[in-house]
Formats: sequence, C-alpha cells, structure tokens
Amino acid sequence: MSSKEAFRIEYDTFGELKVPSDKYYGAQTVRSTMNFKIGGVSERMPVQVIRAFGILKRAAAEVNQDYGLDPKIAKAIVQAANEVAEGKLNDHFPLVVWQTGSGTQTNMNVNEVISNRAIEIMGGTLGSKKPVHPNDHVNKSQSSNDTFPTAMHIAAAQEVNEVLLPGLKKLQNALEGKSKEFSQIIKIGRTHTQDAVPLTLGQEFSGYVQQIKYGVARIESTMPRVYQLAAGGTAVGTGLNTRIGFAEKVAAKVAELTGLPFVTAPNKFEALAAHDALVELSGAMNTVACSLMKIANDIRFLGSGPRSGLGELILPENEPGSSIMPGKVNPTQCEAVTMVAAQVMGNHVAVTVGGSNGHFELNVFKPMMIKNVLNSARLLGDVCVSFTDNCVVGIQANTDRINKLMNESLMLVTALNPHIGYDKAAKIAKTAHKEGTTLKEAAIKLGFLTSDQFDQWVKPKDMLGPQ
Amino acid sequence: MSSKEAFRIEYDTFGELKVPSDKYYGAQTVRSTMNFKIGGVSERMPVQVIRAFGILKRAAAEVNQDYGLDPKIAKAIVQAANEVAEGKLNDHFPLVVWQTGSGTQTNMNVNEVISNRAIEIMGGTLGSKKPVHPNDHVNKSQSSNDTFPTAMHIAAAQEVNEVLLPGLKKLQNALEGKSKEFSQIIKIGRTHTQDAVPLTLGQEFSGYVQQIKYGVARIESTMPRVYQLAAGGTAVGTGLNTRIGFAEKVAAKVAELTGLPFVTAPNKFEALAAHDALVELSGAMNTVACSLMKIANDIRFLGSGPRSGLGELILPENEPGSSIMPGKVNPTQCEAVTMVAAQVMGNHVAVTVGGSNGHFELNVFKPMMIKNVLNSARLLGDVCVSFTDNCVVGIQANTDRINKLMNESLMLVTALNPHIGYDKAAKIAKTAHKEGTTLKEAAIKLGFLTSDQFDQWVKPKDMLGPQ
Amino acid sequence: MSSKEAFRIEYDTFGELKVPSDKYYGAQTVRSTMNFKIGGVSERMPVQVIRAFGILKRAAAEVNQDYGLDPKIAKAIVQAANEVAEGKLNDHFPLVVWQTGSGTQTNMNVNEVISNRAIEIMGGTLGSKKPVHPNDHVNKSQSSNDTFPTAMHIAAAQEVNEVLLPGLKKLQNALEGKSKEFSQIIKIGRTHTQDAVPLTLGQEFSGYVQQIKYGVARIESTMPRVYQLAAGGTAVGTGLNTRIGFAEKVAAKVAELTGLPFVTAPNKFEALAAHDALVELSGAMNTVACSLMKIANDIRFLGSGPRSGLGELILPENEPGSSIMPGKVNPTQCEAVTMVAAQVMGNHVAVTVGGSNGHFELNVFKPMMIKNVLNSARLLGDVCVSFTDNCVVGIQANTDRINKLMNESLMLVTALNPHIGYDKAAKIAKTAHKEGTTLKEAAIKLGFLTSDQFDQWVKPKDMLGPQ
Amino acid sequence: MSSKEAFRIEYDTFGELKVPSDKYYGAQTVRSTMNFKIGGVSERMPVQVIRAFGILKRAAAEVNQDYGLDPKIAKAIVQAANEVAEGKLNDHFPLVVWQTGSGTQTNMNVNEVISNRAIEIMGGTLGSKKPVHPNDHVNKSQSSNDTFPTAMHIAAAQEVNEVLLPGLKKLQNALEGKSKEFSQIIKIGRTHTQDAVPLTLGQEFSGYVQQIKYGVARIESTMPRVYQLAAGGTAVGTGLNTRIGFAEKVAAKVAELTGLPFVTAPNKFEALAAHDALVELSGAMNTVACSLMKIANDIRFLGSGPRSGLGELILPENEPGSSIMPGKVNPTQCEAVTMVAAQVMGNHVAVTVGGSNGHFELNVFKPMMIKNVLNSARLLGDVCVSFTDNCVVGIQANTDRINKLMNESLMLVTALNPHIGYDKAAKIAKTAHKEGTTLKEAAIKLGFLTSDQFDQWVKPKDMLGPQ
Repeated sequence: MSSKEAFRIEYDTFGELKVPSDKYYGAQTVRSTMNFKIGGVSERMPVQVIRAFGILKRAAAEVNQDYGLDPKIAKAIVQAANEVAEGKLNDHFPLVVWQTGSGTQTNMNVNEVISNRAIEIMGGTLGSKKPVHPNDHVNKSQSSNDTFPTAMHIAAAQEVNEVLLPGLKKLQNALEGKSKEFSQIIKIGRTHTQDAVPLTLGQEFSGYVQQIKYGVARIESTMPRVYQLAAGGTAVGTGLNTRIGFAEKVAAKVAELTGLPFVTAPNKFEALAAHDALVELSGAMNTVACSLMKIANDIRFLGSGPRSGLGELILPENEPGSSIMPGKVNPTQCEAVTMVAAQVMGNHVAVTVGGSNGHFELNVFKPMMIKNVLNSARLLGDVCVSFTDNCVVGIQANTDRINKLMNESLMLVTALNPHIGYDKAAKIAKTAHKEGTTLKEAAIKLGFLTSDQFDQWVKPKDMLGPQ
Repeated sequence: MSSKEAFRIEYDTFGELKVPSDKYYGAQTVRSTMNFKIGGVSERMPVQVIRAFGILKRAAAEVNQDYGLDPKIAKAIVQAANEVAEGKLNDHFPLVVWQTGSGTQTNMNVNEVISNRAIEIMGGTLGSKKPVHPNDHVNKSQSSNDTFPTAMHIAAAQEVNEVLLPGLKKLQNALEGKSKEFSQIIKIGRTHTQDAVPLTLGQEFSGYVQQIKYGVARIESTMPRVYQLAAGGTAVGTGLNTRIGFAEKVAAKVAELTGLPFVTAPNKFEALAAHDALVELSGAMNTVACSLMKIANDIRFLGSGPRSGLGELILPENEPGSSIMPGKVNPTQCEAVTMVAAQVMGNHVAVTVGGSNGHFELNVFKPMMIKNVLNSARLLGDVCVSFTDNCVVGIQANTDRINKLMNESLMLVTALNPHIGYDKAAKIAKTAHKEGTTLKEAAIKLGFLTSDQFDQWVKPKDMLGPQ
Repeated sequence: MSSKEAFRIEYDTFGELKVPSDKYYGAQTVRSTMNFKIGGVSERMPVQVIRAFGILKRAAAEVNQDYGLDPKIAKAIVQAANEVAEGKLNDHFPLVVWQTGSGTQTNMNVNEVISNRAIEIMGGTLGSKKPVHPNDHVNKSQSSNDTFPTAMHIAAAQEVNEVLLPGLKKLQNALEGKSKEFSQIIKIGRTHTQDAVPLTLGQEFSGYVQQIKYGVARIESTMPRVYQLAAGGTAVGTGLNTRIGFAEKVAAKVAELTGLPFVTAPNKFEALAAHDALVELSGAMNTVACSLMKIANDIRFLGSGPRSGLGELILPENEPGSSIMPGKVNPTQCEAVTMVAAQVMGNHVAVTVGGSNGHFELNVFKPMMIKNVLNSARLLGDVCVSFTDNCVVGIQANTDRINKLMNESLMLVTALNPHIGYDKAAKIAKTAHKEGTTLKEAAIKLGFLTSDQFDQWVKPKDMLGPQ
Repeated sequence: MSSKEAFRIEYDTFGELKVPSDKYYGAQTVRSTMNFKIGGVSERMPVQVIRAFGILKRAAAEVNQDYGLDPKIAKAIVQAANEVAEGKLNDHFPLVVWQTGSGTQTNMNVNEVISNRAIEIMGGTLGSKKPVHPNDHVNKSQSSNDTFPTAMHIAAAQEVNEVLLPGLKKLQNALEGKSKEFSQIIKIGRTHTQDAVPLTLGQEFSGYVQQIKYGVARIESTMPRVYQLAAGGTAVGTGLNTRIGFAEKVAAKVAELTGLPFVTAPNKFEALAAHDALVELSGAMNTVACSLMKIANDIRFLGSGPRSGLGELILPENEPGSSIMPGKVNPTQCEAVTMVAAQVMGNHVAVTVGGSNGHFELNVFKPMMIKNVLNSARLLGDVCVSFTDNCVVGIQANTDRINKLMNESLMLVTALNPHIGYDKAAKIAKTAHKEGTTLKEAAIKLGFLTSDQFDQWVKPKDMLGPQ
C-alpha cells in the first residue's frame, strides 16, 4: 500500500500488525486484507458505501455529543467523517466486498480511519487510539450490525436519487418528445413480429413513455422502506448501549445532511436480520430492466437495415460499427442498454438469494447485497443518460419507408370486420396474400364489396382509435 | 375427450375439424390441441384465467348491448359467460399454457364455448355459429391482444385478494400473537449464527411480524397497476373496432362484478406490449418469498433438537417424521414454506425473462407469465395458511432451555463496554471462553471490576433496549 | 376422495384416521392431505416420481428376498410395485409437492399403497399391515432419505431419455435437413440486427444444428452423476439397517428394470445431503433453453411479414392467428418454444436455490427440485417435437425476397478490403448509403476502382468462406 | 487520462479526435469513452480479456506472416501484442464493458494500442497508422465478431485453469485431510436439522469432498467446448477475408502460447451467434456455488456457539468479530463463501439472459457475458483458497461436545428396528422424549427388551454402515 515501505505498529484484540505509515486505517483493516484476498481491487467495497458511512459517523458523533461525548472529540470526529463523506479519503479503504457478511471490517475500517484522522487533527499519534478511540468514540452507541445496514440504505437512497431517477426521467422526457414529434406518422403495427393494424409512431413511443414513467413510480414506491434506518439497533436490534432517542436523532441528522427523508426504522430486529427493503428495491429495478430491454430491442429492430431490415427508424451514427465491414453502423447504445438490463436481472437474483438467507438476528450477506443494488442503480441510471443523449434524441423517422410498408399492409382488412364480418375479411386477406395483390383488388374480385365501399371503409387514419 | 366417440363438424378459416359432441368448444380449440401437445393435462391454462375470461366476456356483452348488440344475444352470452366465470364449464377448456404467446387460442376457446353454450340456450345448433358467432358477437370490440391481458390482470388481482393477502394477514396475526405471548422471555441473541447479546423471544418474533406486514404493503403497492385493464385496446392498442367509451365501461363493469377497483389502462400500447405490472407484482412476491424463507429457517433452527439442536422452540408434532427413525418429528411445515419460497424465486425469473422479451405492439409470453404469477400467489397464500395453522399457532417456548443458554452466554459482557471499555471487556470474554468459566469469575480474576459491580452492570433485563 | 363415502380406520404413530375404502393409501397419506393443503390437484407429486418409486420398491423387494425376506411377501410387493411402476395406481397418490422436504410422506404413500395392494393380493385385510407392513417390509433397508433421491434420479433419467433427448435429436435432424436443403441459397447476413456480409441460408441453419447437437452433448455429459443412486444410504448415508451389498444390488436391479446404466452412488452422504447432480442437469437444460430461445427468435424474425418484415422464410400456417385481424398467421410454434425457454430458466433458479440450501445430512428441497427438473425436461422435449413437426419441417425459403435483399446490400463492400483497404471501402459504403446508389456506382464515382475490378472482386459466391 | 494535458490528433471513419499523447490507443477508443459513460472505472473491460487479446493478436500476426504479411510488421506486432498479453499496457485500455455488444470497440482499442506500439517500435509516428495499420495489419483476417469471442474463450479458459480449478482442488485436498483426521469421531447425524442416527465426522466431511470433487469434474466436462475458438470466422462465420487454414493455425498457435488444448470451432456460425459454451460453463460454476453454499452453511452451523450453538466444530479465530460485542468470533470465511455463492448464482442469470438473446449471425451481449463468467471463476477460485487457508485447515473437532450430544440422542433407537419393529421403537423414543429419560430407561420400562439386549443392539459404532 505504501510506496515508502514505512510502517507503524497497531494492534487489535488479536495482536500487533504493521500498518503503512501513510494510511489512516489500522490493525483490523490490515488483518482483513490478509484474510480476504478475494477478487482484487475491482471488488473493493463501493465508495458510495464508504461515503455513506462518513455521513452516518458524523451524524452519530453530533448526537453522541448531545448525550455527553467530549465536544472536542466530537468536533474532530465530525471533521474527519466529513472528509470520508466527501470522498477525500477513498484511498484509505482497501477492503473488498467479500469479507465478513455483516460488513464489520468495513465499519472498523471507517472507525479506524476516522479515529486516526481525528487524532491527527487533535495533534495525537496515529495508532495510539488516543484521544479518539475507534470503538469507544467513533463507534459509540453503534455496532457494525446497525451501522452497515444504515450505510447501505443511505448509499442506496443517494444512488437512486442522484443517478437512477434522474436518468429515468431524462429518458422519459426524451421519449415523450419523440412521441409528440411522431404523433402524425401512421405506420404499420406489428404483433407476434408479424404485420398488424396501423398505429402512429407517436402512439408506439407513448407505450415506451408509459413504461419508463411507471418505472419511476415503481422505484419511488419502494423508497419509504429504504428511507428507514437501522441505526440505534446496535448488535441485535434492542439498542443495547445506546440512549433513548439516539436512533431518532441520528436518523433526523442523516436526513438533514442528505436532504432525503430518512427516519428511524420502526422495528430494528427486522432492519438487521432482513434486507427485504433492498430486495424490494432491486425488484423494482428488475422491472425497469424489463422495460428497457423491451424498448431497446424495439428501437434496434425498427432501426434495422440499412437495406435489409425494417428500416422505419434512422438511428444516430456514433462510431464505426465494424472492424471488418467498412461503413457499418450499429445500434450500439441499444446494445449497452440490453446488456445492462441482463446484468440487473442477474444482480437481482444475487440480491434475492442473499436476502433470503439471513439467520436469527442478522443477515450476513450485507456487502454482497449492497454491491449489487448500487451496481444496478448506477448502471441503469448511467445507461439511460447515455441512451438518451447518444441515441433517443437523435432518432429520426424514415417516413418514406414507413408509408410504403403501411400502404402495402394486408392487415388493413381488419377495418372491414364490422361491415362484412370476420370470415369474409379473412378470405380477402388470404386471397391478396396468395395472389400478391392489394386488398382492394382481392376484395372486389371476391365480390364482397365495391371499390367505393373499400375506399370509404379502409382508411388508416380512421383506424387509430375507437369510434 | 368424449367418451361417446361422437363428433360434430366445425370449421375455422383453416378448414373443417371434428369436435367432440359433448364439448362446447369448437374448431380452433381442437386445432390447438393438435398443434400443441406440450406438457399434458397438468400444463393446462389455469382455471383462474378461464374464470376471469368469463367475467370479462360478460362485461363486454353488457357494454356491447349498450352500443347496439341484440339484447337477446347479449343476454345469452351473459348467461353463458357467467357459467364460465363460476367454473361450471371448466371441462371445456383443454388447452395448455404452451400455445400462442398471446393466448389467442384460449380467447377463441372461450369465444367458442360461450357462443355454443349461448346458441344452446337460444335453441340453436352447436357449431352453427348462429345466432351467436364466436368472433362477431362474443369477441365483439375485442381482440385476444387486449382480452388476454385483461383476463391476466383480473385473475392475478383476484388470486392476490382471495388467496395471497388473506394468507399473509393470517400469518401476520399469528406471529403477532406469538410475539406478545413471548414478550417476557429473555433469550440469547445470535448474530453470524454465533452467540450474541440478549433480546426477548417476543422481540425476535416482532421482526417476523414486521417482515410480513411489509410484505402485505409491498403486494398492495403494486396493485394499482394490476388494476389497470387493457380491454378496449383491441389488436395493437389503438382501440380499432371499438367504440369510444367502451374501454372505460368494460373496466367499470368488471370492477362491479368483482368488487375490485379496476380501471381502464391509461395507455393501451403499454398494456399490450409489456407486462411490467406482472413483473412488478412477481417482484413483490419474490420479496415475500425472501421473508418467508428467513422466518421458516429461523423457526426450524430454533426448534432443532430434540436433544442436539438449539431447542429454544417446541414445534407442533404433526406427523411421523421418518420412515426409518422411529419417533422422529420434523419441521415439515417450515420445509413446505422454504420450498415454496424457492419456487416463487424461480417463477419470478421466468416472469422476468418473459416480461423483457416483448416485441413491438405485443408481448407474446402472456400465458407463461400469468401461469407463474398465479402459481406464486396461490402457493404463497396457501403455504401461509398451512404454516400458520399447523405450525405457528402451536409453537411453544422451551423456557428451561432458553434460560440455561442465556445465563451461560459470554456476550453479556457487552454490557460492560460503557463501564470498562471495549478492550478490557474483550479480555474478560476471551478469558472466560478459554478457561470455561463464567464471565463474572473471569472479570474478577482479571481485576477489572468487583463482584458487586458485575452484578449491577450485567443484567440481561437491562440489555433489552436503550437507556 | 371416495365417491362411496365409505371409510376404513388406519393408524400411524400419531393415532387413528379415516381412510377412503377404495384407496390403497393409509393413515400417513391421509394425514399429509390434511396438513398440506397447498396448491391443489395441479401441484401433485409428478407421476414420474411415483412410477420411479414403483421401480425402486420392486428392486428393493427382490434384493431383500436375497437377504431373507419371505418370498411370498416379496412376490406380492413386486407385483404391487409393478402396478405402481406401470402407472396403474396413479389415483392412489394424492399428495402434493409442498410437503416434507425429504418427500417422506410420498415414500410412505408408496409404502402404504404397495403394502395394502400386496395385502389384498395375499388375501389380507386392507389397513391391517399384515402380512405386509409398509415400514418393516416395503420400506425394508430403506429410508425416505435414500429412496426419495433414488426415485428422483430414476425419474429424471427416464424423462431425459424418453422425452428430452429424443425431442432434441428430432429437432437436430430436422434442422440438419433444412441446412442441407438451403445450402445453395446465398443471403445477406445480419450482425447487430444490421445488414452484414453474405452467407448461405444453409450455413445459418448449420449454426442452429450445432447448438442442438451440443445441447444433446451437454445433457449427456451430466448423466453419469444422475445415474448414481442413493439407495442403500438409508437415513443419513451410513447405510444403517441395510446389508452389505444391498446398495449395489438395488442399483443393478434398477438398471436392469429400466435399461439405463444406474450404479450405486460412491458417496451416500453427498447423495442425500446435496442434489448437485440435479442442479447440474438443470443447468444443462438451461443452456439448451438459451439455444432454443435464440433459434426460435431467429426463425420468427426471418419469417416476419408477410409484407413489412424480413420475410426471408415462409413458416407453415397452422391456425388462424388473430381473433380480430382476419387472415393473420403467426409464428405460434416459435412462441411456445420461447415461453418454454423462459420457464426452464425460471425452473433452473428454483432448482438452484433449493440445491444450495441443504443442511447437514439432508437436503429438504427434494420434491420441489424434482418437480422443476421433470417439468423442464418434459417441456423442452415436447416443445422440440411440436416445433419440429408443426414448424421446422415446413419452413420454406422465400428465395425472391432473399435474392433481392442480398443484391441490394451495402456490406458486400467488405470484399474490397484486401484490395483497396478498409478506409476507402468505408467511404464507398457510406457514399452509396447516403446517395441511395449501388456500391458499384459509388465505387466508380469515387474513383477507387474500375467497373471490371468491382465485378471481379465483389462476388457473393466468393464471400462464403476463406480463400 | 494524460497528466501532461498533451494531445495528438487521430481519426477514424467518423472524423478527428484528440488522443492523449501518452496513450497508445487511438480515435475509436476515445470516441467510445465519449459515447459510453456508464459505470465508471470499476466497470472497465476485465484485464483478462485484454491479455487474452494480446495472445490472440500475436498468434494472428504470426499466422498472417505465413500468409504473406511483411515480417518486419509481423515482428513488431508480435512484440507489441506480447506486451499486451503480459499486462504491461493495461493502462491503455480505458473502455467499459457497457459498449457495443460485440466488443468491437475493445477489439479496436487493442488494434490501436498494438499498431501504435508497433509503430513506435519501428520508429514511426503514433497515430499515423504507418507502417502498421490497426485494421489492415493488426486486425488482418479478423473481425471483432470472431476475435472478441476468441478472447472470451481464451480468458475464460485461463481463469478456469489458473484460478478456479486450483482453488477447488486445494479445497478438496483440505477437506479430504479433515475427513481422514475425523474418521474415528462418531457424532450425531442431523436430518431436517433434527437429531438423527449417528455417523462419523469424517463421513460427514467426505460428502463435502465428493461435492468439490464432482465440482471439478463438472467444470472440466464443459471445457471441451470452451477450448473451441471462433477465430477465422470473421464477420458472420463464413471466414470471409481469411485464408484457408488460417483458423486452424491460429487456434494451434494460441494453444502453443497458452499451453491449453484450444482448437478451432467446428462451426463458426454457432461460435459467433451463440455463447452457449459460456452459459454452460457458468452453469457448472452455478452448481459449484450450490455445493459451496451447502458446505459453508454446515460448517458455520456446526461451529456455532461458543455456548448456545451446536458447537461440534471449533473454527479458527481470525479477527475480532464485533465492533460492539467484545470477544466475539465469527465464521467470517464461511460468510465470504456464501456471499460469493449468491453472486455466482446471480451472475449465472445475467449470463443466461445474455446468452439467450443473440440474433441472427451475432450475439451482442459478449462483454457482459464474459465479465460475469470471469467474475464467477475468479471469486470462486479465490474464495476457495481463502476458505481453505483461513478456515478449513484449522478446523478442530470439539470431541467433548460431540460425544455428549451423541450419547444423549434419541435416534439411536433406530438400531432397534430390525429387532422389535418400527412401531415399538417409535414408542420408546417418544416415551424417552416425553419423560426426559434415556432410551434404555424407556425401553425397559415399556418392557420391550432387556437391559442386556439394549446394550447389545444399540451400539453407535455398529451404526456407521451396513452389516
């Protein structure tokens, strides 16, 4: 870790360990890096969790001061915790996700970094645990078992509000704009991937708008339970070693610091032993993934071509599409969207399996669960922005192609049902299909109606809604 | 199908087919049984879907009458549809789930059965399509593409309201009763499956209560979108061949017939092309499955024994537990619960995959999706009732065992943290563990506190909440 | 259960119970129907499991006779077990999947039915347990814990060999036939759903052939572990209360009766406590599901139209496609295939969750696991047959359409890479696309090559393989 | 990217772009970083893929030289590719997984880095594409569509052989050692988590050994298809723009460079359009995850305590277990194992969804799929090593506790079945349980057998196998 090869000695209840001099973390962090060599750097605890811990530790210190913690110590902790919250000390958090299932070692990593940084602020010696002790002061009235789930909820709520929801809303707006722009373009519908009766391109896009709009509602409907914080439950949910009111005050402080409506969880036993709220949030993201998969698939198929596909949409050309086929342009943004959708579905299963396997007073799949929830939120939010900026806003309708396909369609015959009945209409369509003629030609040939009647009854413009 | 070996001839647009004389269904149904020999009888379309179709077809006929359908025909359709809704004609629906992905053939099965039964009521000849035509009358203003999703939502909403939610609430009440009954029993907590600080057995159960209570809330929060009906969208969502107001009136009629707050879907394109609402509902059931897995696991482990397990709970003995080990009693209800939970998680993935793969104006995984959603709702609801009646209400606390374990626990040492600090407390616990002594003996031996101080500070009753 | 309303009294170690007189099952079965009202008739234990139990019980009786079981009793058990194996007594197995996780109650259901039927054969009184006792004779040297997993493996192996593999091979053959039939049809390729360089339709289908061929190999590569039987492990894997050699002899007997290469599991502890072999088989079926999803998706998109799709394939018309759009034909077989694929993916997750949650000497997700494995095998096998018979064998190439698309393609430009380099080739393609001209026109206009050179270098026939 | 803020100008077919002077990558890479801002640094293409590309590009250059590529250019490419293969140029690969679904941009990133580094080696100007062109030379006879899947297979095979299989084998050996060490320790068995008949602790561990041993076999049985390389298929599988023999020679060269038995894929259409081989490998890893979940769960429950759990195993104490409960030691390695298992199950679903959604000649979920496969392989391999070193090898049997539980067990009654029958044995066990006595006391009291008979028949040592 240290380029200086200089170490100081710290200890935990298991003994002494060498700690790099230029790091704020201590013995328990070092011990964890030795015991959990799993996955490497890319598997580190997400920084969102670390930053959420900074917020929590600051809140706890301020509340602890109300309950008697030395104001000088509290002040130093607050300053150090703030630096963690701001991401300034990210380099001091080397631990991977694949550690204790309660995240204890990350909680201790945070306690160690904050205590040592606070000691530094107060002029003490790193590793001395004086005047700021990682457990007795930084972790005061807390346990990993309640702080880690609190940090999970803070991190998830922030990622949802800062990345996921803005991304979804941006996409919704862009799709809404396209739906309006395309409101007068009548095109053939497709069901079972086969030709069907017409609708407008704007109507088609309105379905996508509705999916995303509901996606936002789905995410939001899960948030009340994500806004509930475990802090104050300590080791098993009883709140041992905290003070009456601590839980409520910490939640209020976190709400103030984040601007999000956090409250204390009404039942701390549930909040430690289960993470149903994250399974639920992940489930909502899974639904959003389904929506995005559908929309991106449609857009790439509608934009397929340039000469041998459906060709109704012209997608923006963003990059060379092939290393071997010159001039090829691909729906790459759609591909990123669908890959993200698949990942979110997979993440959801990981979260589900973890969420179902808690035992007694504690679920010990915490780091894995939050990693996947944050990953899903970030990827969905980011890909919505990328998709919007690099694809959706630039989509154009290929009106020549759309008109051609619509006018050749056999399914316009459906407009005849109320006039000549289903069975005769079916005969017209089948005849035209078999003989390669137009519907009108087939209809007249079969003697089911006159040319005038056909023109009067089969008008695509009249087929776009109920009468 | 027919024991009489007697057939009548019916036809569809593809030609003639022999139909068993004692069945109301017609040519399209027979054709589907020939084309889709997949899975056999156990894979038939769920009866809940068939019955929901009965409700829908009745509602549609009544509204069609408002728009001019011959009242005699409407009346006969209503009567026949009612019989379908009441499950009286279940034997006339032989089709399997694994058919057209839009459920077209089941819609036609329904149209055929109702038209033939209505013809019979009106004194006509089965298969004549007169005076009641399956397409022109029974399916009037409808398409499989909007009726099938409508029936999906009706069936899902009914199963949720009639089976799932009552089951969950029953379980919640039973757990709440136990939580109160056990409120004074102090026991050792367990985190990481290891001994931890105490809580009451009532507190432990209160976590389960909260999980189920939130489960109910989770299901309910998804229902607004399930109560939205596609009816009126017809083939692609535009509502072609319906009348203005048809969609709203049908939804109102279905709401009246079912007593559930159905409304017409605000965007029919979304309602046909995506089934996000069912993915969402399935996601909520997936979360409930996680909750149940956790609770049932806890209860079977807490009830493990009789002599070599944790033994804190005494579970009802319901049946001989082993075909080889005499006298063995097993937590069989817990096992049914956890098996159902696993099934629901699997069903959810099937629903997710289907929900993500719609194309253009239609999702064609409809029968598979509703099969899984209904299966999850039914199994969860039923297993909650079975678990409650045959296990939860009969759970007794083994207080002797609970007291013994609690008093021997080393984790009571946590109460000393505020008095002597974490590090010294740790030494006491480790010493007692190593030497097999009590905490008190170790504490005094180490000279960290007096016997009186120990008695004053380490009181399990004082460890059950903040101070 | 009984239409006669007549009952006899039987007892288990928990007391007396009324049993319908016309049923062979006994008290433990009745007790289970009372304790597990979950899911109803459609959730009954799969008949394949019941029939596999018949085979096992016969094998065990024959081996027990070798070890001293009264030959008269053995003979009666063999006869009764045979009837179970042949499916003649299916009505006597009312229990649902959602019972004890070891399947104990189904094992006892089998023991009771066979003992009562054997008693009947020997002229005794039903329910008397004399002269054939369900535990002491039918279950001799056995436990639910080893018989149920044995029945699981027998049932799975039979379903794989009788339904799944034949279905896959039939589909492979049909695709192979089409690949050969289409070997001379040159068509445009599509990558990223966009136009790409040409290949033959036969080559395209050869990819499908390879997928199914490997699917067969994948299934087969998992079977060695499915052919291992737990019988002889009894309660915890030690083989308590069996005789040395019993395990090997039973496996040999089952192999003889089924014609499949069953052997005794080398480690019975693994065979009872884990069902990794079924997770593995399910995983192979999951891969097959991916293959089928891909193939069916391709075929429906290539067959999309009739006038507004890709239109390269003409799929058989099997039934009326729409209840509202006359003359519509849909790729319904493809839809059944993709729905099955989604179901198999979901079943796989259920199997995975169950498979991961065994504890100590026993996995108690057995009935759920085998239900899903059998469902996947059956659905995949059946749908392959349906897809082959009703779709694949009737697929025709729309050669006019294929030729038209191929000749208009811009991606033929790729053939110029080795001659003029990627960058110049890209310019030609982009120019042609922009100006709506042919590649040749654009190439000459840009002055990159002569007309003769173009004709010499750009030959679709020469683009079908390396040179 | 560059600390110097110095740029050079490069271009692709879309125009000019500024490239950091200190990077070897070019315009297409820069363009991708602009178009795909998704997920950030932690979502970069796994370095294993980059290194595999280095191997492939070296192999291709050597083969291309055989077919006429200028030896000087080939030599420079080989040297540059080697540096990529050795991981020396990792900083030059900034692209994320969430890009084109074919990995085209990563292939171009590789082409650009190698061409520029080769240009540098040959004394040319970076970005000049002379004398080494990224497409015409580095990518010669290749397409992203065949190189990316080739790199996927190389990377997966290496991770399996270097990390996953060694990890599994190490764990297998450690468990085997423990199984032998514990072979004489008789303990109570547990089925349904309830007391059952005895087995040895060695037998219990032998089940784990078997699971891991079969896990190795499962992984290995999937490798033949992973060892098949797509190289030579180019854009759509036909091998356009390659030479006859190129595919075979490249595969042979890759085999030589890696020491792994790579061969050319027999059907390139399948190799580009589907990634069933990776779904299959992922499925095998999913099965391994189930095994590990089971084993780790067992070990933590058997090691639960210290005073209120099962307490049969003593697990190594590796770190302080709690930030609030002093002296607490937790089964943290087991927790890492089970979290990894859940992640692998989730990854598997992502791989499955991606694998099922290929279209026509190309699957475009490639980067997502390989990311998940590599993640699963790495995490499983690493966690096996960590679990072995930090837990398994240090597990001790708590023989006092084991003996105590075994001797008190009621399930020893099973040994009486052959002597007095199941029903009487059940009465003994139930009586002893109810009255809190020993089995012997109950047996004699009930008069079913004598004291001597009991001693003779109920011997745990005789209950460990068949007789």
